[in-house]
Amino acid sequence: MTHPLRIGIAGLGTVGTSVVAIIEGQRALLRARTGSDIEITAVSARDKNKERSVELGAYRFESDPMALVSASDVDVVVELIGGAEGVAHELVKTALKNGKHVVTANKALIAAHGASLAAEAERKNCALFFEAAVAGGIPILKALREGLAANAISRVIGILNGTCNYILTHMWEGKRELADVLAEAQALGYAEADPSFDVGGMDAAHKLAILTALAYGAAPDLKHLHVEGIEGVSFRDMQFADQLGYTIRLLGITSRTEQGILQRVHPCLVAKGSSLASVRGVLGAVQVQGDSVGTVFMQGAGAGGAPTASSVVADVMDIARSNRSYAFGIAADKLAALKPAPMASLASAYYVRIGAVDKPGVLADITASFRDSGISVKSFIQHGQAAGEKVTIVIATHTTTEADMQRALATIAKQPSILEAPFSIRIEE
Amino acid sequence: MTHPLRIGIAGLGTVGTSVVAIIEGQRALLRARTGSDIEITAVSARDKNKERSVELGAYRFESDPMALVSASDVDVVVELIGGAEGVAHELVKTALKNGKHVVTANKALIAAHGASLAAEAERKNCALFFEAAVAGGIPILKALREGLAANAISRVIGILNGTCNYILTHMWEGKRELADVLAEAQALGYAEADPSFDVGGMDAAHKLAILTALAYGAAPDLKHLHVEGIEGVSFRDMQFADQLGYTIRLLGITSRTEQGILQRVHPCLVAKGSSLASVRGVLGAVQVQGDSVGTVFMQGAGAGGAPTASSVVADVMDIARSNRSYAFGIAADKLAALKPAPMASLASAYYVRIGAVDKPGVLADITASFRDSGISVKSFIQHGQAAGEKVTIVIATHTTTEADMQRALATIAKQPSILEAPFSIRIEE
Repeated sequence: MTHPLRIGIAGLGTVGTSVVAIIEGQRALLRARTGSDIEITAVSARDKNKERSVELGAYRFESDPMALVSASDVDVVVELIGGAEGVAHELVKTALKNGKHVVTANKALIAAHGASLAAEAERKNCALFFEAAVAGGIPILKALREGLAANAISRVIGILNGTCNYILTHMWEGKRELADVLAEAQALGYAEADPSFDVGGMDAAHKLAILTALAYGAAPDLKHLHVEGIEGVSFRDMQFADQLGYTIRLLGITSRTEQGILQRVHPCLVAKGSSLASVRGVLGAVQVQGDSVGTVFMQGAGAGGAPTASSVVADVMDIARSNRSYAFGIAADKLAALKPAPMASLASAYYVRIGAVDKPGVLADITASFRDSGISVKSFIQHGQAAGEKVTIVIATHTTTEADMQRALATIAKQPSILEAPFSIRIEE
Repeated sequence: MTHPLRIGIAGLGTVGTSVVAIIEGQRALLRARTGSDIEITAVSARDKNKERSVELGAYRFESDPMALVSASDVDVVVELIGGAEGVAHELVKTALKNGKHVVTANKALIAAHGASLAAEAERKNCALFFEAAVAGGIPILKALREGLAANAISRVIGILNGTCNYILTHMWEGKRELADVLAEAQALGYAEADPSFDVGGMDAAHKLAILTALAYGAAPDLKHLHVEGIEGVSFRDMQFADQLGYTIRLLGITSRTEQGILQRVHPCLVAKGSSLASVRGVLGAVQVQGDSVGTVFMQGAGAGGAPTASSVVADVMDIARSNRSYAFGIAADKLAALKPAPMASLASAYYVRIGAVDKPGVLADITASFRDSGISVKSFIQHGQAAGEKVTIVIATHTTTEADMQRALATIAKQPSILEAPFSIRIEE
């Protein structure tokens, strides 16, 4: 039995209070599984007197979180403040500089500054762990870093944003439109007052950048990451997708291609009956393709106080066991700059919805545009109204390139009988 | 950079040769991810000259595997011989006694002797890892031991035998009977010449005993583990299950109940559309229920040379990183004897198929037996032929206890109009 591992927690929201609840409530279990006592010595939050679900009286309260990083009775700083810059960054940087281990759930911070923070951690022989930053309670970073470490990874696909998955699931199951479900999600507390970060895909992008770094041993890179949100997806698209055998999900996909690493977040059509299609509501999931293991799929609570705290405490327990895995799976000074593949090089099949005037020649013009870009049509749905009125044409293509598809879409958009710009969603087979 | 970690491999079948292929083929990757070189120095197999898919010329060949455990140039013994007793047991025991780390894929050995071997490993400050023993390439033991370690586990459910899942999937999809699919699986090499170990559930039982040990911190216990195989499952049962909204899978389930730990392997009806139902063919899956994380589901290749080797090499890499987690998640001297719950105490819903003479009063007698045991019927299907001929009655019950169900079944079996003993399958909701 070594001396207790002493924890300072910065940030006492739903995750922070759940971390306190686990460490206090599972004291014997944590000791049995690590061989050490884990003790909270100090906490910090903006408002000391806010009503919280856990008892904090036994801990020193620091109104300035920076006090934790210089406290002699804190071995591990748990950062649950959030945000890529400001106090969270300062706190983590200084904690590592002061030789303290850091556990954080802060995806924005790790996506932006992970590589330099990992380097600082290694200089000080400290751990920097952030399992909770990606996919909540699913231990996917440990799987990439350790459990699947014998594999060269070719592809990681994630359902990384619970708000978007909740919205898409409820749109389909309730035959509703996005704005309607979003308003409900906000009322229920599943979506932020300003939902653009979730709905627009940036939250998923932060998580994907971290997955990429671990999968390929590259520094996280948000600049070379193509992001589209779910704003354009309508219930009508879900109906067409269903007719074609698909469901719509917001995916984060990172893949190793001949031209480099391609990172992208956007809605996708996924086959009904597939593992990804089966992920409903606020659940999250990650699917990893390795050269020896094949496909491994993990699903669980991608967000929420207790599941996220499960990952935070698991990281703390790894520190108690003296697990000193590299933060990104390889030494920080070996983290390569990511060699990005251009989005135009993406090979994908596509769903395309086009609104046009229903008159002779429209279909010929559209199909000619696909042909001229070398794109082969796989399925075709036409929903006409009265002749001369608007017709909706839906096309599913065979695999083509993003460049060819964008060229075809630009040509189609200029055709005189087109009433609304073509809307496309990639198909993930 | 520390000195190389030197490996001796005992057993060069499909897993052993895949381990060699990964260690040689991913040399740079393994070094980057561990900070150490991993080198094979010696190998052992029954037949030196057998044709194999990998080049072995660079390694010392030992015709006696026991030579590995005393070799001064072997730090880690990788045991891939198999079997609970005999040379595999002797090899692992002696390797640990000699202060060598051990990685094994041997489920039978760990289920039978895991606790004493873990104790020996801890005495010598050596690692004993066996990720490959359960669910092939899925890193489920690491998840239980580390990634989900902050959770009190209430339940683990696994699809743990690829042969059975292959048979059940192909029975349903091909409208075929078990014997027919089994013969095909044997011809394709997916089933052993003597399939009783797989089909009868013992292979899954070994794996479940290991999952139980890690989930609950108890020594593996095969004695208190209820085992039924899939021999009794017919295509007809799958059709009835389908009508009721279910698919049939062989599950291993370990759960913490008020009366103790209940371990069981048997066929189950699982809801169509559930994660477990979506596991097809030779895939494996494990679902864990934790108090903080909720349900985490992991799916992947549960068997096969390369996926299993992925787990073996991951364990070796953990040793290279000086990860010294307890073999069963807690210290060996703290492993409790498992307090078993009696199978009779199981609370479950049931599917029951009864063949009876189609005459007045039969149904009344059957339903009276359920009533007298306090069992409530949820669904009912009757498939009659000509009056006076055989009728098949299928009943799905609400939750009851195993004891009550067995009493009802015994009563029904004795009724004069019953033509074949009632056949029941538990329903896992």
